[in-house]
Amino acid sequence: MSDLYEPKPAELAYTFGGRQPVRDLHPGQVLSVYTEDCFGGAVKTIDDLPTRVCQMPYLNPVTGPFYINGAEPGDTLAVHFLDIAPARDWGVSSTFPHFGALTSTHTTATLQPPLDERVWMYPIDATAGTVRFQARDSDYGLDLPLEPMHGTVGVAPAGFQVISTITSDVHGGNLDTPELRAGTTLYLPVFVHGALLALGDGHARQGQGETSGVAVETAMHTTITIDVIKGVATPTPRLETSDGLLSIGCARPLEDAFRISQHDLVQWVAELTGLGLLDAYQLVAQAGTAPVGNVCDPNYTMLARMPKALLGTAAAYGGAHERLRATPRPTPGGGVR
Amino acid sequence: MSDLYEPKPAELAYTFGGRQPVRDLHPGQVLSVYTEDCFGGAVKTIDDLPTRVCQMPYLNPVTGPFYINGAEPGDTLAVHFLDIAPARDWGVSSTFPHFGALTSTHTTATLQPPLDERVWMYPIDATAGTVRFQARDSDYGLDLPLEPMHGTVGVAPAGFQVISTITSDVHGGNLDTPELRAGTTLYLPVFVHGALLALGDGHARQGQGETSGVAVETAMHTTITIDVIKGVATPTPRLETSDGLLSIGCARPLEDAFRISQHDLVQWVAELTGLGLLDAYQLVAQAGTAPVGNVCDPNYTMLARMPKALLGTAAAYGGAHERLRATPRPTPGGGVR
Amino acid sequence: MSDLYEPKPAELAYTFGGRQPVRDLHPGQVLSVYTEDCFGGAVKTIDDLPTRVCQMPYLNPVTGPFYINGAEPGDTLAVHFLDIAPARDWGVSSTFPHFGALTSTHTTATLQPPLDERVWMYPIDATAGTVRFQARDSDYGLDLPLEPMHGTVGVAPAGFQVISTITSDVHGGNLDTPELRAGTTLYLPVFVHGALLALGDGHARQGQGETSGVAVETAMHTTITIDVIKGVATPTPRLETSDGLLSIGCARPLEDAFRISQHDLVQWVAELTGLGLLDAYQLVAQAGTAPVGNVCDPNYTMLARMPKALLGTAAAYGGAHERLRATPRPTPGGGVR
Amino acid sequence: MSDLYEPKPAELAYTFGGRQPVRDLHPGQVLSVYTEDCFGGAVKTIDDLPTRVCQMPYLNPVTGPFYINGAEPGDTLAVHFLDIAPARDWGVSSTFPHFGALTSTHTTATLQPPLDERVWMYPIDATAGTVRFQARDSDYGLDLPLEPMHGTVGVAPAGFQVISTITSDVHGGNLDTPELRAGTTLYLPVFVHGALLALGDGHARQGQGETSGVAVETAMHTTITIDVIKGVATPTPRLETSDGLLSIGCARPLEDAFRISQHDLVQWVAELTGLGLLDAYQLVAQAGTAPVGNVCDPNYTMLARMPKALLGTAAAYGGAHERLRATPRPTPGGGVR
Repeated sequence: MSDLYEPKPAELAYTFGGRQPVRDLHPGQVLSVYTEDCFGGAVKTIDDLPTRVCQMPYLNPVTGPFYINGAEPGDTLAVHFLDIAPARDWGVSSTFPHFGALTSTHTTATLQPPLDERVWMYPIDATAGTVRFQARDSDYGLDLPLEPMHGTVGVAPAGFQVISTITSDVHGGNLDTPELRAGTTLYLPVFVHGALLALGDGHARQGQGETSGVAVETAMHTTITIDVIKGVATPTPRLETSDGLLSIGCARPLEDAFRISQHDLVQWVAELTGLGLLDAYQLVAQAGTAPVGNVCDPNYTMLARMPKALLGTAAAYGGAHERLRATPRPTPGGGVR
Repeated sequence: MSDLYEPKPAELAYTFGGRQPVRDLHPGQVLSVYTEDCFGGAVKTIDDLPTRVCQMPYLNPVTGPFYINGAEPGDTLAVHFLDIAPARDWGVSSTFPHFGALTSTHTTATLQPPLDERVWMYPIDATAGTVRFQARDSDYGLDLPLEPMHGTVGVAPAGFQVISTITSDVHGGNLDTPELRAGTTLYLPVFVHGALLALGDGHARQGQGETSGVAVETAMHTTITIDVIKGVATPTPRLETSDGLLSIGCARPLEDAFRISQHDLVQWVAELTGLGLLDAYQLVAQAGTAPVGNVCDPNYTMLARMPKALLGTAAAYGGAHERLRATPRPTPGGGVR
Repeated sequence: MSDLYEPKPAELAYTFGGRQPVRDLHPGQVLSVYTEDCFGGAVKTIDDLPTRVCQMPYLNPVTGPFYINGAEPGDTLAVHFLDIAPARDWGVSSTFPHFGALTSTHTTATLQPPLDERVWMYPIDATAGTVRFQARDSDYGLDLPLEPMHGTVGVAPAGFQVISTITSDVHGGNLDTPELRAGTTLYLPVFVHGALLALGDGHARQGQGETSGVAVETAMHTTITIDVIKGVATPTPRLETSDGLLSIGCARPLEDAFRISQHDLVQWVAELTGLGLLDAYQLVAQAGTAPVGNVCDPNYTMLARMPKALLGTAAAYGGAHERLRATPRPTPGGGVR
Repeated sequence: MSDLYEPKPAELAYTFGGRQPVRDLHPGQVLSVYTEDCFGGAVKTIDDLPTRVCQMPYLNPVTGPFYINGAEPGDTLAVHFLDIAPARDWGVSSTFPHFGALTSTHTTATLQPPLDERVWMYPIDATAGTVRFQARDSDYGLDLPLEPMHGTVGVAPAGFQVISTITSDVHGGNLDTPELRAGTTLYLPVFVHGALLALGDGHARQGQGETSGVAVETAMHTTITIDVIKGVATPTPRLETSDGLLSIGCARPLEDAFRISQHDLVQWVAELTGLGLLDAYQLVAQAGTAPVGNVCDPNYTMLARMPKALLGTAAAYGGAHERLRATPRPTPGGGVR
């Protein structure tokens, strides 16, 4: 049985750090939360252009932060996603002026006018497991797999900083990787007492790169459980799935995001297997994959992945993932009281 | 029954362009070739350090070029890989000073000494379908799947240029993507009469990104067949597999390689489906993937992939891939006369 | 006669935003401040290695923030530097592990060990106007011109954010450009009531690019005066000197910092001269310069500069710079009570 | 008295490498050449849009190549520019679709339409020393200083390559830096027998960055003299002026061009002064400047500059620059027979 937290609009946060916790959690606790979509639910039809119905900086709200009992600077917070289920029967996507990989942006600044702003509505059929793409300029339509994920999960950053939920860094944040799905454990470094975990930005699905800048955005009912790995620091966000370990690099340019992720994976593999650094480099180079996260946000994300089968019997973080995934699952589709 | 071409050492090429063709081919012909590894076969033991046994610019030799009858500037050359099989029972990898993603390089220049140069030998078991990784600093060893591919395939470039086989661009070249395996069709633009196709740089396997700069390099027996798509230009190298279409971007920085690949895929999807440009952008953003090629060569490569199942009945290049893959397969493991 | 503010150690700030103002200022007021060096004064000899005597995040302290009466979101804050004078007769520089342009860093991550950490002491002779470089590995020594500047000047950022003084963005911050010297006016956007101006990180001198990551760092006595341009927004930090206008771009990769700066300068020139956008682009391309700021901080800075002589009689921000520079100068070398 | 070479149209080259020499030169010889503008002279009025009157790859012609007697691989070629004088009383600039720093390009690919293509004509007044900018959308016009330079100077590249004159690399090429003016010595590595020097792409003036992609292009009468530094290799193009040494980095992304230039300058300074590497790094960081070349070509260029006054009595390349600049000057404005 899980606890349920549904934020009131005024409780939504737009930063990591700088906010009082809305609730505290203890390791092992199961919590179900409601998260709003990146537009705060304001884009409901193709006529609701984001720049008209949304107001900066009230974009990409997150639910939380949650104070994690026992989490202290230098520890690692393990967040396991037991369930991520759309809270609506529709999602929404759009172009957004000066945002996205195939347009000039505020940083990749050009003198051209921006692309047209346009909205796409995606009916979600949770039973069939589909989201439906319907072209705006023609009758072309088709079903895509429903693959729910969270774009934004993070903790309060280091150094007294308060960082917008639009970006990502070592504290997590707007990672925007399709790898962050149910069944996955996210490891985050703890920088402040209580870690101050928050999450949001659910996507019914997302391509690698989030090329247009906006995924199929929707509200979510999400159930998590957590653990605190005492005295173990984590240099950059990491994921563990049933069959893989992934390191996440958040940076610009994209090759630096790649470098960070590969560098961390090499170190992690060396630590888990006892391989020398050059041997671990060699193994990652031949056996690793590099799932792209986003190439549109203020920091891009790249992931470096190693199959666990290649790492022998070593368990990351003392087996935290296996323990957390053994947590009794709540009723699918939402927490129960 | 396929023709067989085995180059003599003096026939190996180190550039795309600038060489006389070694043989001519006509569309539909099946050709088996021998390709040397990227070290020209000179690194045979862990004591053969590449910088000692190889001499610039005699690195990354390719077999060819082949003059393709009927191929003229503005056409597209389709190269279908019927078979790629290691010609040896071993492969080799190494670090190489100032080369690779996790070291300073001649362009990402730093004042630090380079990483140690070191060689790894990989026994190949073609029957078991494995290549064996053996650590240099410890007893750690394990089998990885044998997944043969070609790193380098290209044609003569435009504008009278002659380009080293170490790099890649719109003419193809050192693409270094694991997607270039048997069963795949590679589409290349034709810039000169006869196209002047050449190929080499076989990898027994390679991780995404080729992070250390060197894959599991080996000589190959490879069988191809070709077609010429008359009057159809191709803006950047593309791949077609049984279930996907892929555009390849070759550039630095990495986000530009990403942009090129995604931009081309959006245009290609729009053309095949009749979708408007923004609709195609939207579809690619939600349903596309972005397999990383290499992040170590002078030009990085990123791929943008769309499942063919999402594109209805449209066939790329008039169905060239289906026609080519229907070519009778030669005996696996090498061409037959 | 100027007011004087010397912060106690506990009053130093390490972020822009997130701090209560230490004092309030009104437009036209002249203020002299003491600023600490980027090491908080802890590196005093060549044996004081920064990583030993400094503790993260207590690096790059700034003096302030100052609440600017009348400054509201959407306004522009003009900060004129009347005087910048070293408060000590020595400055200090160093290498710093994983920081600098010619070393691997936490983002441009490699597997190589970092460069050695080393400190250089620079005697300052204010009368002669020199700082003295003395090699560590030999007797080589020479005098360089004393050219005092501030590396870090900024206001509280937008969107409730609190940003480390180590980085820069549209709110200013660690701009690290030698153009920010006495006689210059810095224009910053105002995001919060009172703007919350802070400054620090004085450099006795700095090369373009701040290639090693650390300039000739010293404490400063600095005198500023300010103005508020009501209802005029500023998209990115800008400078005005006696003969030039400069736009500053803060971003990674470096070409994006360049693009931002040039894009803003084109828009600014168009606005001041009435030129069409393409005409302004053309004029900037032929007559502009691009002074490099830093290529070492989390965000790089590039500047785009246009000679004022080419812009006719138009005055930026209604002539704010000319008004501010006409402020009676305080006694050189420090504020007077 | 200098020799004169004026190429016939069919003698113009569009690549470095791949061409037979048009003439041979011996060290110490003075040669005057005519160079065409980057459009081959085809853009003569504002109605001559480059994409209509020019045809790829016939852009950016160079004069040469010249076979340098005695130059062998591993040597350095010193090219001293005695005079660079416009051969016409007009220059021309333009926007060019998908080219320039403030537009999407073929590599920084976006879905937006390109900027309008437009031409600007610049009357040149050699006596007054001015080029005149005249806006296209208004009456705004003004004189800019005439500051003639060559955009493109290079030799045949290494490894049998033949490289378009549009790009630059260690062989030189389209460096597009305003620092390459009369009175300057350019040092280039020699990769093939005779070096095969060629030059072109004269600019009546150019801003730093060549932001719009096209400078004030004009034909030139240029007088050079040369020397060969036997047995001394040069890692990347370098310049020497009366008061400075400059290293040029050619790469993407821009930070890599910066790194290459700074890295080479640090090594050069260490070699000339005997300073240790970290001491040289420190000195460059505090006393160096970083003049931007171009941020628009396929490879960007950044320069790193050190004042010669800070380097003691050491002379680069055994004093080649001083010897070459002592060559008797030909009549200004063109070669004499």
